[in-house]
Amino acid sequence: MEQKAVQDYYPEEYSHCYGCGRLNERGLKIKSFWDGEESVATFTPKSYHTAVPGFVYGGLIASIIDCHGVGTAAAAAYGAEGRDMGTDPPLRYVTASLHVDFLAPTPLGVPLEARGRVKEIKGRKVVVSITLAAGGKVCARGEVVAVQIPEEMKKT
Amino acid sequence: MEQKAVQDYYPEEYSHCYGCGRLNERGLKIKSFWDGEESVATFTPKSYHTAVPGFVYGGLIASIIDCHGVGTAAAAAYGAEGRDMGTDPPLRYVTASLHVDFLAPTPLGVPLEARGRVKEIKGRKVVVSITLAAGGKVCARGEVVAVQIPEEMKKT
Repeated sequence: MEQKAVQDYYPEEYSHCYGCGRLNERGLKIKSFWDGEESVATFTPKSYHTAVPGFVYGGLIASIIDCHGVGTAAAAAYGAEGRDMGTDPPLRYVTASLHVDFLAPTPLGVPLEARGRVKEIKGRKVVVSITLAAGGKVCARGEVVAVQIPEEMKKT
Repeated sequence: MEQKAVQDYYPEEYSHCYGCGRLNERGLKIKSFWDGEESVATFTPKSYHTAVPGFVYGGLIASIIDCHGVGTAAAAAYGAEGRDMGTDPPLRYVTASLHVDFLAPTPLGVPLEARGRVKEIKGRKVVVSITLAAGGKVCARGEVVAVQIPEEMKKT
């Protein structure tokens, strides 16, 4: 059976994200899956996602790391509570801080693989470390501090 | 006379960036200007640049901070060398690291104003601090470490 992405368990009101929402028709639809101890998201940039010709735009890399980090946080939080993904009440995270180190130019035209590891879960906060590789070479490293969605961002 | 944006001085081969390239037809066309001691970029997100309904996607905020930081770095480097923007050899920067703290949910539907200040110029590196405000309220704060474009990213 094909595994369902973390983001595809988000309830409808949390599924409009430009980066990873299944209901955002203009969005990137980044999808995160579990793979053993890590989460993984694979994304192939479009030809126009360029920084300079031949290389991937850093803001797109930041977006992949952002959404993959938040998705990893949500999945980890369900796991920590011993709950199945998608059960109520929904656990949806947003980004409190994002850090990306660009280690090497990222070539355009190949799938990028982001791999996440949970570094810390504490209260409403989850810290996720992420590497982003192209053709097996790590080109960027990131850290996402994710927090449970604040009341003011919930749909009223 | 209308001021020309920093990014509009980039030579053609460096003007395809998805975030700020004037020649990227699918891109965001983020534009940075000088305003006294600071640089400023104003960008109004599209309705689909959403995180959850009513709020701006964090990856877009990271993209604005990224391109505005790199543009600010280039302009500052020309200034430090006592050169006019756009003179040869071109000074083009790329992002070595990007940090964004999301301080408050950023409302969708209003122009966002990013303001940058040069924190450090040293050798090939420029560090830029940036705030991003919506309706006068600072919603995010960022730091970009920009470095001169490496040889391997130059068009051959």
